[in-house]
Amino acid sequence: MVVGEVIQERELIIVGGGPGGYNAAIRAAQLGIEVTLIEKGDLGGICLSKGCIPSKLYAHTAEKLGDWKHMQQIGIEAAEPKFNMPQHNAYMKQTVSALQKGVEALCKANKIEVINGTASFMTGNRIGVESGDTFEMFKYEKAIVATGASASIPEEIDARFNHVYNAQEIYATEEVPEHLVIYGSDYIALEAATSFNAMGSKVTIVLDGGNEFGFDTEINKELTRVLKKSKIKVIKDTVIETVEESDDNVTLHLVKKDEKLTVEGSHLLVSTGFQPNTTELGLEALSMETDENGFLIVNEFSETTEKNIYAVGDVTIGPSLAVKAIKQGKVAAEHLAGKTPELNLRYIPTVVYTSTPIAHAGLTEAQAIEEGYQVITGQFSMAGNGFAGIAGKKEGLVKIIKDADTDLLLGVHMIGQGAVEMISSGVTALEMAARDEDLSYPFYPHPSFNEGWLEALESMTGEAIHIPPNKQQKKEAEPVG
Amino acid sequence: MVVGEVIQERELIIVGGGPGGYNAAIRAAQLGIEVTLIEKGDLGGICLSKGCIPSKLYAHTAEKLGDWKHMQQIGIEAAEPKFNMPQHNAYMKQTVSALQKGVEALCKANKIEVINGTASFMTGNRIGVESGDTFEMFKYEKAIVATGASASIPEEIDARFNHVYNAQEIYATEEVPEHLVIYGSDYIALEAATSFNAMGSKVTIVLDGGNEFGFDTEINKELTRVLKKSKIKVIKDTVIETVEESDDNVTLHLVKKDEKLTVEGSHLLVSTGFQPNTTELGLEALSMETDENGFLIVNEFSETTEKNIYAVGDVTIGPSLAVKAIKQGKVAAEHLAGKTPELNLRYIPTVVYTSTPIAHAGLTEAQAIEEGYQVITGQFSMAGNGFAGIAGKKEGLVKIIKDADTDLLLGVHMIGQGAVEMISSGVTALEMAARDEDLSYPFYPHPSFNEGWLEALESMTGEAIHIPPNKQQKKEAEPVG
Repeated sequence: MVVGEVIQERELIIVGGGPGGYNAAIRAAQLGIEVTLIEKGDLGGICLSKGCIPSKLYAHTAEKLGDWKHMQQIGIEAAEPKFNMPQHNAYMKQTVSALQKGVEALCKANKIEVINGTASFMTGNRIGVESGDTFEMFKYEKAIVATGASASIPEEIDARFNHVYNAQEIYATEEVPEHLVIYGSDYIALEAATSFNAMGSKVTIVLDGGNEFGFDTEINKELTRVLKKSKIKVIKDTVIETVEESDDNVTLHLVKKDEKLTVEGSHLLVSTGFQPNTTELGLEALSMETDENGFLIVNEFSETTEKNIYAVGDVTIGPSLAVKAIKQGKVAAEHLAGKTPELNLRYIPTVVYTSTPIAHAGLTEAQAIEEGYQVITGQFSMAGNGFAGIAGKKEGLVKIIKDADTDLLLGVHMIGQGAVEMISSGVTALEMAARDEDLSYPFYPHPSFNEGWLEALESMTGEAIHIPPNKQQKKEAEPVG
Repeated sequence: MVVGEVIQERELIIVGGGPGGYNAAIRAAQLGIEVTLIEKGDLGGICLSKGCIPSKLYAHTAEKLGDWKHMQQIGIEAAEPKFNMPQHNAYMKQTVSALQKGVEALCKANKIEVINGTASFMTGNRIGVESGDTFEMFKYEKAIVATGASASIPEEIDARFNHVYNAQEIYATEEVPEHLVIYGSDYIALEAATSFNAMGSKVTIVLDGGNEFGFDTEINKELTRVLKKSKIKVIKDTVIETVEESDDNVTLHLVKKDEKLTVEGSHLLVSTGFQPNTTELGLEALSMETDENGFLIVNEFSETTEKNIYAVGDVTIGPSLAVKAIKQGKVAAEHLAGKTPELNLRYIPTVVYTSTPIAHAGLTEAQAIEEGYQVITGQFSMAGNGFAGIAGKKEGLVKIIKDADTDLLLGVHMIGQGAVEMISSGVTALEMAARDEDLSYPFYPHPSFNEGWLEALESMTGEAIHIPPNKQQKKEAEPVG
């Protein structure tokens, strides 16, 4: 190993070039800071190469595969298409590579020094970087940790099994599983379920504890209906005991109440959470506080408890979502540049690119009641939306929750076509402390999916146009306790 | 003809069952008013049977037809589909019929009396209704005129020609035109252009005056690029002299500066505006003011200048858009029920379901400058959006305009996939008098089309992440005059 002779000085060192890291790097550069970005793999991180981007391409392809029947209905005559996985994955590699090159070009244009290597903190504002057979030492004024997290697997399951994938491995598969069993209930589990289902896999979801998905009750119900219609089986209320693998299948041994249950599939995807990537970081040299699972504790400016070190994204406490990492990256960069950015995770949107997409922000009805609100809800089924009829996308609903006392919106929830694109109006409204009338007063294009939101809002006062009077009772729930 | 013997009394009579009329009827019924709705054709009006709904189905089908090449790229193997127009139109009839039945059922559920007939006002709060061979006379307390408008054709063009369609006839066609020439530049002209193009027609657009579409300059530019890519020819700066028809084609004789020009096609669509449907209304019995084109003048509550008579939708002054009719219908109903609704057309969104959709609300840059604002704009090309790369929808851009003095948003403009769904966040922000930071502070799901909006906002201050520094100058325009 070649060890650099001098300690080089740097203004800002960012460890990790995923969405949190590269957004931080570019924002800091925009603010006039000299940035060094250390990444041991590819720029864009797991999100770009194995997570967000591949999963969304799979979801996109699934949506297009799912169009076929509807296309026949509307006069687009074609034989049932065949799915060519190698071609699909070639497009994926090309897309991922183009995006990676884009990030590289942006770093270059912003004069960011990118070092390919593995970084480890030392005492005294020093960080060592190992790259191939060289080792260099840097002294930094400020640092940002953006190393992300790795998919974790419960100890009952042997991660070394050939037919077991974690959340960061599944989209590297080169075949469409014959029968994909999914252990989990988060957005990763759900997206994989509907994507592989559309590609021809039989899919069984085994919920990792509990008997429901984690959305608002009405969304859970509609999701359950949609999954059933797609012939995706959902197994609830079980505890996993062991998993066995043979040459061509995987068997889950489950316990449901007192009953034993086995589920067999050709492959198993496990999506049950993440563990922070901190083992190589040399945290023992620092006094950075973590939570009980090792995630770095940060404040609203993304500062860790160690002076001059920020942390952003999945390595920190809070939800493991790229949207959080991106925002934290910018906030950290702005804060260390002397600005006073704001960050509040309360209205972070969750989106799920299932074949019938899901998006929500703010409180569920149950959460709002638990927080002591007197709640009024409005709801509209997309089956009553004219544009949904045109597009053959009648699944889904919009549900909006407000506080009866102040009329302030508390939560917006949608399952249905366009949910992801439309969640931004809900998030904007929530962030601006909107009352229901701030969302019901504006014009909604006609015909459009958007009108479903207006009808959900109007149903709060029994005034949705496309709901018969006897079906739109003003629903007031009593606060609990 | 059988004439009813007595004058029947009614609380509210609505003439016309299109979107304006039936929304007014249902809202009035919700507020406890007894409603009589008179419609001479089908409930839902032109919008449902010949306008909004058919055109959006055509646009939807065009989008799906346009997917084919991209589907090959992502591994969905299928022979190039054939377009079956009779099957498509059968689906259209079925969709339209289902929606009409839906409106009928809603009227019934809301106890609205629906009379199939032609209404004509008399003096003294009376209205006569001719239905088949019966004639009945009603005395009303309040009335709403919602008779809509008819597509008008310039006098240079003979509407009786077999191969000439107006905006309300084109979607009743039973064949895909070989070469569709479109005279016009509005959303109807544009939607027909990209829809029939995708279905196999050669398409030529002849702008009806002027040399540009009516959007913000940057949207016009991108639209022009997109149309060119689709091989849709656009002819600008001409004046129409005459139109001739032979057995199998239509010839437009145009003048461009001093040069004569002819354009030949198999069919001609003319979309140059509307005239109000008032001839059968017996307006001579009333003292209702109209503008110079005969559109009824209404105030912000949709009241006409005649006591107790409201008017809503295309028969009134202002844009001919269903979204306006729907809102006015509700506002009229609420106002006559004693409420104090609000209506302001300033932030009415315009959406165009072209193959690359367009949506905008508020001011264009040129309008903002003309209104005396010191303008800052932000812009982001969807080619730089990760999700657009996944979906193969890299065309388009987002442009946002704010006032440099107050930071208040003035206008939001998008051409690109998801534009219609995402315009609602812009409209909500405009209606809530948002500053740019109210839209840039919230979280945008990753990856999503929505992120294009954030980058357009960030580019105002040179802080878009995915634009290189040398390409995102803060653009300040000087106010004119």
